[in-house]
Amino acid sequence: MNRANAARPILWNYHLSTCSWRVRIALSLKAIDYEYRAVDLLSKKGGDQFSTQFTKLNPKQEVPILLIDNNLFTQSIPIIEYLDDTRTSGTKLLSSDPVKRAKSKIIAELINSGIQPYQNANVIKKINVQMGKVKRIEWLNFYLNKGLKALEANLKNTKGRYCVGDEISIADLCLVPQVYAAKRYKIDVTKYPLINSVNLELEILPNFIKAHPDNQPDSLKNNN
Amino acid sequence: MNRANAARPILWNYHLSTCSWRVRIALSLKAIDYEYRAVDLLSKKGGDQFSTQFTKLNPKQEVPILLIDNNLFTQSIPIIEYLDDTRTSGTKLLSSDPVKRAKSKIIAELINSGIQPYQNANVIKKINVQMGKVKRIEWLNFYLNKGLKALEANLKNTKGRYCVGDEISIADLCLVPQVYAAKRYKIDVTKYPLINSVNLELEILPNFIKAHPDNQPDSLKNNN
Repeated sequence: MNRANAARPILWNYHLSTCSWRVRIALSLKAIDYEYRAVDLLSKKGGDQFSTQFTKLNPKQEVPILLIDNNLFTQSIPIIEYLDDTRTSGTKLLSSDPVKRAKSKIIAELINSGIQPYQNANVIKKINVQMGKVKRIEWLNFYLNKGLKALEANLKNTKGRYCVGDEISIADLCLVPQVYAAKRYKIDVTKYPLINSVNLELEILPNFIKAHPDNQPDSLKNNN
Repeated sequence: MNRANAARPILWNYHLSTCSWRVRIALSLKAIDYEYRAVDLLSKKGGDQFSTQFTKLNPKQEVPILLIDNNLFTQSIPIIEYLDDTRTSGTKLLSSDPVKRAKSKIIAELINSGIQPYQNANVIKKINVQMGKVKRIEWLNFYLNKGLKALEANLKNTKGRYCVGDEISIADLCLVPQVYAAKRYKIDVTKYPLINSVNLELEILPNFIKAHPDNQPDSLKNNN
């Protein structure tokens, strides 16, 4: 049986979540149709990810979650790798060359474990409550610039048209949402010319546009 | 040419760094000989990872770095995956079954991006300076327990003798150092019986003992 013909996958996600967005790009690039289930991380109840029902699905109380092939998977990077491992459709997201594959994953991890954990909604809320708005802005500036500076240096050794050479990879799926988040937090991304250049190449591609927060059912733009 | 016979790999690392420790376990399980280069993250100069020389090697100013096959790789998870991709020696760290592989990587990421970023030396130092010792302890208790609780729930669906079934995987390489770090920060790990049980199975294995902080050249135990 062709796995792509099995039950339609379900993605629990939030339009602005950068980790959700990475998976949306992957699903789009792999031409996988899916059901969109919105989880409002900023709901008036204090975040729908903390509900009893959602916590049963993911005890870490985070999006994204993907139900696919009868498995419930969390964590964006393993989800993307699973999609690429099991689907030959669309764009290959991980090179068959181990060195190129490692270079893409290193960039993906630099963002996933080295930047995103310091800017996610829960942490920012905690910093705000504990230290106030000024320190929160300092915190975001510190971690975002530290991460982007390291990413810029990394791209010097890997960049072609995209993050690693001229082929789209898992690294690119992490870069675009990260740049968007940095801009939301008023970071001047033009200070990082290589990051900025890769982002400009990627953000105009149809599969990236399709996955953009503004184009999701739970975007405020679509609810006005 | 057999890659294992090429130039001896060099690992820049620190005995207590949990990310370094994961890679040491991988090198040990894959039976790869390497040169140990200690980077003192807590040196009197404020951390040798911030030196100009080290920053050239890794702009992110973190360990581990592995020089192997003429490539300089950062980020523990991609390093471990590269070792498993390119070396058939020793233990297989990622299953050839995509679902099992995803389950192992999900646990590895839960620790790598979901817990470790909140307990690393730089963050703890920052929290301490900004908010003081009491808030630092609260911070560690909050993030470690939140992460371990989610990990415990995850293991209910995957655990055998080890994290995922009865075969060692990348998940186990992340679990042992994480449990050690939690204990250092006075978390009672027996509250998490599945985590505790897997850790007890793993920590007595020779390759895990060999990679333990106490058994590294830069351990204080070895310098007294």
